[in-house]
Amino acid sequence: MTADVSPDTSGTRGAERPKLTAPPNNEGVDAAVAAARRVVASLLHAGDNSPAEMAEVATKLNAVADYLDEHAPAMEERMVDMWAGEGVTRHDPVAGPENTIAPPLPLAGSEDGSIQGVATLGMPYQGPPGYVHGGISALLLDHTLGVANHWSGPSGMTAELTLRYHRPTPLFEPLTVSGRQVSVDGRKIRTIGDITAGGECCVSAEGLFVTQHPPRPR
Amino acid sequence: MTADVSPDTSGTRGAERPKLTAPPNNEGVDAAVAAARRVVASLLHAGDNSPAEMAEVATKLNAVADYLDEHAPAMEERMVDMWAGEGVTRHDPVAGPENTIAPPLPLAGSEDGSIQGVATLGMPYQGPPGYVHGGISALLLDHTLGVANHWSGPSGMTAELTLRYHRPTPLFEPLTVSGRQVSVDGRKIRTIGDITAGGECCVSAEGLFVTQHPPRPR
Repeated sequence: MTADVSPDTSGTRGAERPKLTAPPNNEGVDAAVAAARRVVASLLHAGDNSPAEMAEVATKLNAVADYLDEHAPAMEERMVDMWAGEGVTRHDPVAGPENTIAPPLPLAGSEDGSIQGVATLGMPYQGPPGYVHGGISALLLDHTLGVANHWSGPSGMTAELTLRYHRPTPLFEPLTVSGRQVSVDGRKIRTIGDITAGGECCVSAEGLFVTQHPPRPR
Repeated sequence: MTADVSPDTSGTRGAERPKLTAPPNNEGVDAAVAAARRVVASLLHAGDNSPAEMAEVATKLNAVADYLDEHAPAMEERMVDMWAGEGVTRHDPVAGPENTIAPPLPLAGSEDGSIQGVATLGMPYQGPPGYVHGGISALLLDHTLGVANHWSGPSGMTAELTLRYHRPTPLFEPLTVSGRQVSVDGRKIRTIGDITAGGECCVSAEGLFVTQHPPRPR
């Protein structure tokens, strides 16, 4: 049976644009990750013609990594810890405040069942000159469609994802990423989304998801 | 007209597995980027329960970013510089030795027209517990299909990309990413690829590309 999906607006969901991604703290590991994002962008901006002493930079960064590793929990322990609870994750590569790779893209849900987020991407996400890499757009959309499923109904793993690139997606401009679950048919979930810049659609996505979740480490 | 694509094996291409991605130097900005990749992984491994002094880590990383920014070229100059020549790029988010986000995935071409690369992904690329994020697989495949086009024929921008997820893609295990251009019909290029782990196909991709290239900054 295919059912139209409408969001559960009972309880807290009726409140103002609930957060579907973990808001960053401005302290602890989140602050260190925010600084690491600056390093990633600055290294790429510097490039190999920069007069900066790169050997010294490498030494300093390796020292930070060594220090963190000396204080790190065992990998198994950390895996259990990062998957504790049933709430939003803090480590994913799109919105996670603990993941330097994440732009990040904060996502919030609307009462109409859709979700939205805005992010401006810099040089680390470049594909063609001055534009976002097509695979980065795919990353943002796959994640947003998955979160849209969490927002309005059953969720699961991506089985199929089709991306259509309508025009190049600009770097250095605010991009709006949206997603919406459109149908649920047994274990099959269909979800759509897009990335717009200045009101124009750059990339659209259709996803087929199946209600399946690998077990969380315990 | 649709033409089967066979690789140009004349000249240097007939030699041993030519590199299609920039090999990292173990010095200069590449060494600093390699150290930054360690920081990204170590921060995520540490998490918010680590006893490490994260405020101190943030201060050190911000100091590195400040230092790099003080020595950085103007953005326009850097954009021209990173797109100079017609060779492989050093800044892309999949294989680029100057991009901390890149795993990296080195790619090499075979005489049969296909290209391959192997990478092992850690925690920053996680989606479901212990598995690669579906959007990261999409990123690797979009890039690999694009490079496969460069290897064997005309290349261009992604117009459509379809990904099929056959089984979860494991973290912490070597993944083989392959791509091959299958046909060229006027401006339309069709290219396929997949990601395998232990010989089993995890994700397959079909891409439609169009022979179009945004101008390089000059």
